Amino acid sequence: MNIREDAERIIRESIKQVLPDEAVVRALQGRSFGPGKVVVVAAGKAAWRMAQTAARILGDKISSGVVVTKYGHVESEIPGMICYEGGHPVPDENSFRGTQAALDLVSGLKPEDTVLFLLSGGGSALFEKPLIPGDELSDITEQLLACGADIVEINTIRKRLSAVKGGRFAKLCEPARILSVVLSDVLGNPLDMIASGPACPDSTTCDDAMAVINKYRLRLSERAMECMRRETPKELANVETVIAGSVSDLCRAAAEECRKLNYETILLTDRLCCEAKEAGSFLASIAGSHEHTDRSLAFIAGGETVVHLTGRGKGGRNQELALSAARGIAGLKDTAVFSVGSDGTDGPTDAAGGYCDGETDAVLAARGVDICEALRQNDAYTALTTCSGLIMTGPTGTNVNDVAVVLIKR
Amino acid sequence: MNIREDAERIIRESIKQVLPDEAVVRALQGRSFGPGKVVVVAAGKAAWRMAQTAARILGDKISSGVVVTKYGHVESEIPGMICYEGGHPVPDENSFRGTQAALDLVSGLKPEDTVLFLLSGGGSALFEKPLIPGDELSDITEQLLACGADIVEINTIRKRLSAVKGGRFAKLCEPARILSVVLSDVLGNPLDMIASGPACPDSTTCDDAMAVINKYRLRLSERAMECMRRETPKELANVETVIAGSVSDLCRAAAEECRKLNYETILLTDRLCCEAKEAGSFLASIAGSHEHTDRSLAFIAGGETVVHLTGRGKGGRNQELALSAARGIAGLKDTAVFSVGSDGTDGPTDAAGGYCDGETDAVLAARGVDICEALRQNDAYTALTTCSGLIMTGPTGTNVNDVAVVLIKR
Repeated sequence: MNIREDAERIIRESIKQVLPDEAVVRALQGRSFGPGKVVVVAAGKAAWRMAQTAARILGDKISSGVVVTKYGHVESEIPGMICYEGGHPVPDENSFRGTQAALDLVSGLKPEDTVLFLLSGGGSALFEKPLIPGDELSDITEQLLACGADIVEINTIRKRLSAVKGGRFAKLCEPARILSVVLSDVLGNPLDMIASGPACPDSTTCDDAMAVINKYRLRLSERAMECMRRETPKELANVETVIAGSVSDLCRAAAEECRKLNYETILLTDRLCCEAKEAGSFLASIAGSHEHTDRSLAFIAGGETVVHLTGRGKGGRNQELALSAARGIAGLKDTAVFSVGSDGTDGPTDAAGGYCDGETDAVLAARGVDICEALRQNDAYTALTTCSGLIMTGPTGTNVNDVAVVLIKR
Repeated sequence: MNIREDAERIIRESIKQVLPDEAVVRALQGRSFGPGKVVVVAAGKAAWRMAQTAARILGDKISSGVVVTKYGHVESEIPGMICYEGGHPVPDENSFRGTQAALDLVSGLKPEDTVLFLLSGGGSALFEKPLIPGDELSDITEQLLACGADIVEINTIRKRLSAVKGGRFAKLCEPARILSVVLSDVLGNPLDMIASGPACPDSTTCDDAMAVINKYRLRLSERAMECMRRETPKELANVETVIAGSVSDLCRAAAEECRKLNYETILLTDRLCCEAKEAGSFLASIAGSHEHTDRSLAFIAGGETVVHLTGRGKGGRNQELALSAARGIAGLKDTAVFSVGSDGTDGPTDAAGGYCDGETDAVLAARGVDICEALRQNDAYTALTTCSGLIMTGPTGTNVNDVAVVLIKR
């Protein structure tokens, strides 16, 4: 196999390990649920796939279920469950309706019953029951964004305006037990951040919320202020959480596949969050320094880089990372840098990511493509099209961030 | 020792290994020079120190020598040598006078004679004999900068306008042999780039030069055009080159010291060249991913990052890298990221670099310093002063770029 074939195989096999189906299988393996009922609540972009897999494994052990996912994400009926599609990233009435159905489902359960809670990215919008009118919620969110509050501050306020976020959903399930199976789309897997933590004790307090309000001089109605004074759960004895899939799993799977292909593998990080093209430059500099190795080497960096738009081209963070690396590895023999989003759609494109090797720079130069200019225009898609550097997987149904890999084949 | 003491020791010991003195000692160790004369030509910012060490080692084996260095860099007379100080980064009449003295010294040598050529950063300006008048040279340089030509294109033109660059100095030394001892300040040590390669065969051709002229429609006098048509040396049988010190040595020395302190050490790269604060973020993400290691770990990244000015504060690339990393390692136990310039002067400051650990973020927050804002203002110096994060070495006398280190102590 050549280095491009190695790359394609590493991508294929590592994404396979973090599909919602695989994640749920791993989480449920060897578990028993006692004599009580098992009800399923699935929320997020991967909700339908996770619920379907649970149904396949547990069969009629599941007594009923509710699925709330994004428009277009329900592929078929699941016996015994009701599927809702709602708004994302902005919640709408259908999100609220699905969430209410889930709340109805878990009310009146007994201590021996279990709620199998299948959570994935997008759950913040899809799983929501606001405690104040929608337009006031929008107004507060806009105030928070305008004043430059960070994501922790925003969540401190937002959790208190919701009947399900910040651990409140878990409270509503009492006295039943909850098995929370999470497919994480947030780096480092902070459970209270993934879908705003419906089944996770909240670490923020009413005092924290008041501090944010005073810091940014937020204008809140008396009703919203009342919410600020109501504390969120700090302990949840009825919840067990399993992170069934995350970028860490994606990285581990990529590392495993690299080793199978005889690369000595170094896992650098699973929480990369810097500028995409700078990450590409960094990874290329690693590749360049190991040019004279006599063993095949792989370096793996998972996470989610960012792109600051300076142009109007077409691309995504994974494509920019790879294209940027092409300069630094120009001329290096059997050396490649590639980066791929596990969801299969990098930015607003039909590509999952980008691939470059030691020849890419020369190929692009010969075809009149200036890499610096392509990056300035955020036009990595067009550049990579020119050198067969696009990675196409199609939508994968999962979303656990991205993985970038440096390969040096000897 | 605590982690800060480890950091200070790694910095001290690794810079010691790349001082000009050490570099020359290593390069001359075990060498003999035959029956002929040995003359010394030393050029660049470290020229005086390199020449002084050569004089100490070889004593009266050296028959004579010329040193051309920057103003203020001659610390005392060296017996048997004449020391010149000239303009840097813009050459002046004193640079030309020193260079001419060197050319006089090497003319008329015999095949059994040796020129010990001690080259360091800054040699492009300090070691120069232009073939066209100074104002025309300035005009052409300005044209090249204005049209956005890259450094390779600029050098392709400039080498042809010089009597010593692009291997021509070595030609002028014939039939004597040259031992070229280089302290490299260019990543990857491209010999034809360090001081424009006075003793290195030139890989660019007259055709290349004409292509650059046509590409950017440069305006050249007939005299300059004549220079363009004169070929540079493509082979130099009389030259032996030793890279006696470089960022690779700096990295290796840092790695060596980390190992002595019981850190398992991974040398990531010796040619890091991305944006300083993004490199800091990348290194912090590596640190964060290895939080749960049970062995002490060190990751080393040498090179020379860049800073794009967005504010008017005080700082340097090493300080920005460290300060940026502080966010990503916030709260991590016994974890540090530091970065230091081997010359001891990072940016226009009296600090060599910056140091941050898991506590830095909280210390700065408590003192009202916002890291993001400090970075936006390019004001890392002020922020690091607040948290005792400046690394002070004083000017070291060497210049082989920078090294950044992640330490995780267990």
